[in-house]
Parts: sequence; structure tokens; C-alpha cells
Amino acid sequence: MSVITLTTDFGNRGYMVASIKGAILKEFENACLVDITHEVEPFNIAEAAFLIRNVYKDFPDGTVHIIGVDSLPNKVTKLLAAKIDGHYFIAADNGILSLILAEQRPENMVEITLGRFHEFSNFPTRDIFVPVACHLLRGGKLEVIGNYTETYKELNTIRPVVHGDDNIMGNVIHIDNYGNVVTNIQKKLFEEKRRGRNFVIQVRHLPFEKILDRYADAVKDFDNEVDSHGEKMVLFNSAGYLEVAVYKGNPNSFGGASSLLGLSVGDVISVEFS
Amino acid sequence: MSVITLTTDFGNRGYMVASIKGAILKEFENACLVDITHEVEPFNIAEAAFLIRNVYKDFPDGTVHIIGVDSLPNKVTKLLAAKIDGHYFIAADNGILSLILAEQRPENMVEITLGRFHEFSNFPTRDIFVPVACHLLRGGKLEVIGNYTETYKELNTIRPVVHGDDNIMGNVIHIDNYGNVVTNIQKKLFEEKRRGRNFVIQVRHLPFEKILDRYADAVKDFDNEVDSHGEKMVLFNSAGYLEVAVYKGNPNSFGGASSLLGLSVGDVISVEFS
Amino acid sequence: MSVITLTTDFGNRGYMVASIKGAILKEFENACLVDITHEVEPFNIAEAAFLIRNVYKDFPDGTVHIIGVDSLPNKVTKLLAAKIDGHYFIAADNGILSLILAEQRPENMVEITLGRFHEFSNFPTRDIFVPVACHLLRGGKLEVIGNYTETYKELNTIRPVVHGDDNIMGNVIHIDNYGNVVTNIQKKLFEEKRRGRNFVIQVRHLPFEKILDRYADAVKDFDNEVDSHGEKMVLFNSAGYLEVAVYKGNPNSFGGASSLLGLSVGDVISVEFS
Repeated sequence: MSVITLTTDFGNRGYMVASIKGAILKEFENACLVDITHEVEPFNIAEAAFLIRNVYKDFPDGTVHIIGVDSLPNKVTKLLAAKIDGHYFIAADNGILSLILAEQRPENMVEITLGRFHEFSNFPTRDIFVPVACHLLRGGKLEVIGNYTETYKELNTIRPVVHGDDNIMGNVIHIDNYGNVVTNIQKKLFEEKRRGRNFVIQVRHLPFEKILDRYADAVKDFDNEVDSHGEKMVLFNSAGYLEVAVYKGNPNSFGGASSLLGLSVGDVISVEFS
Repeated sequence: MSVITLTTDFGNRGYMVASIKGAILKEFENACLVDITHEVEPFNIAEAAFLIRNVYKDFPDGTVHIIGVDSLPNKVTKLLAAKIDGHYFIAADNGILSLILAEQRPENMVEITLGRFHEFSNFPTRDIFVPVACHLLRGGKLEVIGNYTETYKELNTIRPVVHGDDNIMGNVIHIDNYGNVVTNIQKKLFEEKRRGRNFVIQVRHLPFEKILDRYADAVKDFDNEVDSHGEKMVLFNSAGYLEVAVYKGNPNSFGGASSLLGLSVGDVISVEFS
Repeated sequence: MSVITLTTDFGNRGYMVASIKGAILKEFENACLVDITHEVEPFNIAEAAFLIRNVYKDFPDGTVHIIGVDSLPNKVTKLLAAKIDGHYFIAADNGILSLILAEQRPENMVEITLGRFHEFSNFPTRDIFVPVACHLLRGGKLEVIGNYTETYKELNTIRPVVHGDDNIMGNVIHIDNYGNVVTNIQKKLFEEKRRGRNFVIQVRHLPFEKILDRYADAVKDFDNEVDSHGEKMVLFNSAGYLEVAVYKGNPNSFGGASSLLGLSVGDVISVEFS
């Protein structure tokens, strides 16, 4: 099993993504390359962390995840390779690891010292991350490519804020292709705080007092299913995050939750228990 | 040979496509994954059917085609796995199979019953279609994952209408990257109805009485080839559909057939024989 | 090692890219397919050449590069397969080879004559380039698929102009995902002409008299790194081209070099030595 995933903000129109893939195949011809996405907003490590956090467990153990977002090393930013949960992550120490990890800790982590290009490359994702990834795919040890470290930069930007016993203030962290609005409130936190009580989820002017199990539960009558297109609802999505959705939403035609409710990344969604 | 194709409306910016790929590789490490596209317009099964119909025969026999468009199961929509023409198709019973198949019938088809997630997943493309696809790649039988069925939902939305002996009313079903306009009128139907007669293809105000064999046939003088940029023409494209094209059309600069002739998906193109 | 790269202007929403991939896998099941990009501007061979030129050396020797941009053969445009620098390139003779090659010459080159579809296909990238590519992957000889030729169409459109001893007039040839502006002035030419002298790089109204080694060199104080976001600079990028960059530029928020300096593809950047 030799899977490498790539998450970058390089876009799909340039040459950088292909450069990385070529360099990997040159060094490790049986690598299986999977794009997470190359359309992360430039330098947006919160978005990249959200995506990787949601997918990495779907991949086989031992997968190497290269994160080419805000990855230039400098005087104060080192490069890290970490083993977490049976997976390898290679990224700059810009805080992204803390956003991917939440409560977990790395099983093993090194500050990368490998390579003559270090600190001098304008393309570290290719020149440094690729040889590190191939080393790990070949079964190489982390210790060979760097010095053991326990610390990484901590960021809290994508965690919801809990006020006392009765309130969670979350934020929109992602808007999907249907215009559905994903918040940073996870089911686990919600149920811990709820303790079986009633709740109101406040989405702008709209209060929701019920969480659906499935999108299809928004349909009132399946013989006239089209009448339910556009129904607003709240549910926990397949990744476990509270999501404000519109049944069969379509940003290109009648709209999705984002446009219909005027929600953008960063906006507040609050939960009140009683 | 272990090819799986993916056609979805998930977009290339989110995590869902990567989740599917990870889940496949976890279960079947030698799978060869090919994206048809993830940019189908949300819930547009006619567009998805058009794309799959045009490409599936280019793939090796035994390829498994996962269709993650409008794929949520519910009380009235079951999930299907079908063997057709030596290929496997996995999709919701939302009518898309009828649009892909036209006159053919499935060699074998089951309603999927596999899996504990069934009816409860908000991500059936990953949670149900992936294990079905891997089962089929391993040479497993359709009967193991569901109950034999002969019926699927029928839709006619992307077929042209034939009036009597002398008229075909088609529609625009796709606009390509050059702005060329693809109709739902196939060469086979056209020639059957034509029976050697003259014809007029009416594209808005423009009548065409000739069908070119190749784009290059629009060039009058190859020593001054640039003079022919923008020439309008009608031909059967490589997939066998009647297409209104512009020689070297470019939607980003001088325009393509779509913008120059004001044609959008759904617009009518008629053929009159005489 | 059986890598095929694909560079086209087909876009990621249609069926053409998947058709090519299916056709390759049908003929050569162990092919490793890598997209350079499918978002080349329609018929823009200068852009395609720039991308391929920057990445091909990152790939393993023996890689086959299929170029599906402006690839329709006609009376005056033949199709070529060439071995250059240990790599294979398959393209129409529209001038793109001369833009990729610069000073090099092909080690071997043929005009493709293979295939019954020749001159009659509206989809030569699939119908002609794919069988040629698979033949080469199987270790087949160029001579088998065409007639030896030494000539190809020459274009000079993406080379800078050198005036006398003291001046280079370059052009913008690419704008990357961060809005950074890449010129056609390569480090090798710059240093040859410079011969250790001072220089002024004129970017619209802004003169630059210094070339940084790395993006991070634009940061004045790493404890207040955010203060340097938006700093303008000039450097040679990882592909060796002179680039006008903005530190942590983001076209979606405060802007990149392209929007902040009003630079588009084709605009002039001049260098004066003294």
C-alpha cells in the first residue's frame, strides 16, 4: 500500500501540481497519487485542515498526506513530518497540525532536516516534502529525516466556543457544492453539552428545534417530492459536523443554504440548550 | 483490470471525492481510479447520463462506473447495480439508467440491499456504492449484494422528438469547453429519418444545409487559416451527436458557438427533411 | 515505468478527458496517468508549452507526454511524435514543439502515419495519440508509427527580445494561483546579459533593483510576519523564470501581483543593465 494524498492551494491551471507528481513517480514508481484538492483558498490553513481532517481516516493506514498550503519554511517556521493515528502528515509548522489533531497527539514527529534544498527552495512541497514522502513510503523511519520534536504551533481558530452549560457559539467553516453550510460544531460536543435537553439552533433569523437524520427526511410526500425542493433543515453530515442544508439545493439555479440564508464562511451559528 | 470511474456533482473543492477514493483504496488497493467529472451541475442526471453514455465504451470491459449524482436512497428511490454491455453501473434509481441505456436492456440488475448503512447514510456514494464496487472488482456476483430486479425508472428528457416523417426537434444538451453546442440528435436517428433527402438544420435564425465531416473542413485556405477562425458549421462530433461548432471557438476571447448564436442547454434545434 | 501525462484544453466538465483515459487503460492496463492540466485556454499553445516545459524533467525518463491542444491535423498540419531529452512528446505540428524545445533538437522525430482514423478523426487525441502513446509505452519504436522527419514549425512568440547589450524586453506568460506574475525571462539569459552589472527591472511604474532569493526574504520581522503580507518583490521562481510576486498574495482577498500591479498575460516587463 503506497498512497500519497496531495492537498494544496496551487490550483489546477498551473504546473506545480504536475511537478510534484512527476517528482514522486520518478522516485517511487508504484506510488498511488490521490488529490484531496488543489483549490484550497491561498494560504487558508483552516480550510485545508478541515478537508484533511474529514478524509484521512477513509484512507488506508500508512498513507502519506502531503500538505502544500503555506509551506514555505523560514527563520521561525520549521517543516514537520508526523505520524498520527497510523497516518503520516508532512506540513509546515504553521498551526495546521493542531487544527487537524484536536485532542490527539502525534505518535512520533520530527522537524525535517533532510535535503540540501532546505531553507533555500521556493518550492519545498516538491523539493523537500516529496523525498520525505517517498522515504516514508519505502518504510523509512522518521528519525532519519529529521530531529525528534514534541512541539508544534497551536491554533484554535476553527473550534467553537462554549459558554457555560447552555450555549455553543460555532462558525461556518465550509460551503459545499450544493450550497450547504457546514459549521465547526461536531456531534460529539453537541451531545455532551445537550445531555438530553431541548435546544434551539439559531441560523440568522431562523430557529431550528429539530435535527434531521437524513436529507430525505425533509421530504413530506415522496409522490410529490419536487414540492420539498428548497426545504431548509439542520443535520449532522457524514463527517459529523452540524450542517444547515437545503433539500436538493443548487447554487446555480434556485439557490442553496448559503445563498438562501445569506451565510458565508466565518458567520456565527449558535446553539442554546434549555 | 480493475478500473472504477467516478461521476459526481460533489465539485473539486470539497472532501467528498477524496473520501470515496480513500475508501476504495482501503478496500481494494490495486483499484485504478478515473474521474469522469465531479463538476456535474447539482442533481442534473441528464448531464451525468450524457457524459457517461459517451465515455463508458472507451473503458475496458468490466469497468465499474460509480454515479454519485442524486444518489440518496429514500422510501421510493432504491439503489441499483447493473451489468450492461460488459460494464457495471452503480446508481440510484432516479431515471439515469434509462438515459444511459436508450434501447439496450441490462444483462443483469439488482436492487442493492448490502450494508448496514443502507437508508441511513447521508453519503451513500461512499458508504454503499464503494463496497459494492469493490465486491464487483473482486469478481463478486451481483446476486450477493441485492435482489434481482428488471425495472428501473424511465425518463425521456434527453431524447429528441420526431414529428412524422419530415421533422426532428432536438435540444442542446451540452456546451463544451470551446463553446461548441452539442444536441441530442444522434447520427443514427438523423440518417434513418433522412433517407438520402435534403435537409435544413435550423439553429435560431441560421439555416444549415450541409454537415461537415471535420472541423478543419471549415477552413477555406490553409495558407490563411486564421481567416477561418469563427466560421460556423454543423457536424457530427466524435460521440455521434449533431453539434453546432465554431472553428477554433474560444469563449474567453471572440466567443464560441454558444455565445455567438445565443444557445443554452435546453434550447431547440430543428431538422426539416425535404 | 509507464507514465503518460495529459495536457489539453478540454476542460474538466466534459467527457473528452475521460474518453482518452479509458482508451489508454483499454490498451495498456498498467499505464500511470497524470494530468498536467486540462484548463489550458482554448488553442493557446504558448500556455501549454510553458506548462510542459516546466514540468517534463520532473517526470521519469521515458514518460510519454500527450498534448491535446490545437491537435486537429489538416492539409498543412501534420501530427508529430518526438523523442527529446529522454522523453516522448506527441502533438500536432502547430509550433508547440519549438516553444517547448528552445535550443535543443529532438533525438528522433516522426510524422505520424499510423492509424485508419488519420485525417478523418475529430478527436485525434484519443483516436491517434492514444495508440501512439501505448505503442511507445510498450517499448515500440518511433519508426513503426510514422516517417522520419527533421522539421517542425517554428514559433518565437514566447521568447524575450534582447536589444543590444543593455536591455531585455520580456513578457508576462503566466499568472499563478496566488496572482504572481511569471515572465519569459529566464535566469540563464539574465545572468549572461548582466555580466555582474547593476540592473533595473521595470514593472509598470515600479522599478526593482534587487532580486530576492526566496519569497520569505520579503519578510522584515518574523515576529510580525503579517506586516509583510502584500510586500512586492522580484525573484527567479523554482522553474527559473523571473517572477513578480507579492508575499502571501491572494487574488480572492487583498489581491496578488497581477491585480495590484495591473499585469496581464502579454504585458511587457523590461530589464536595463548599467
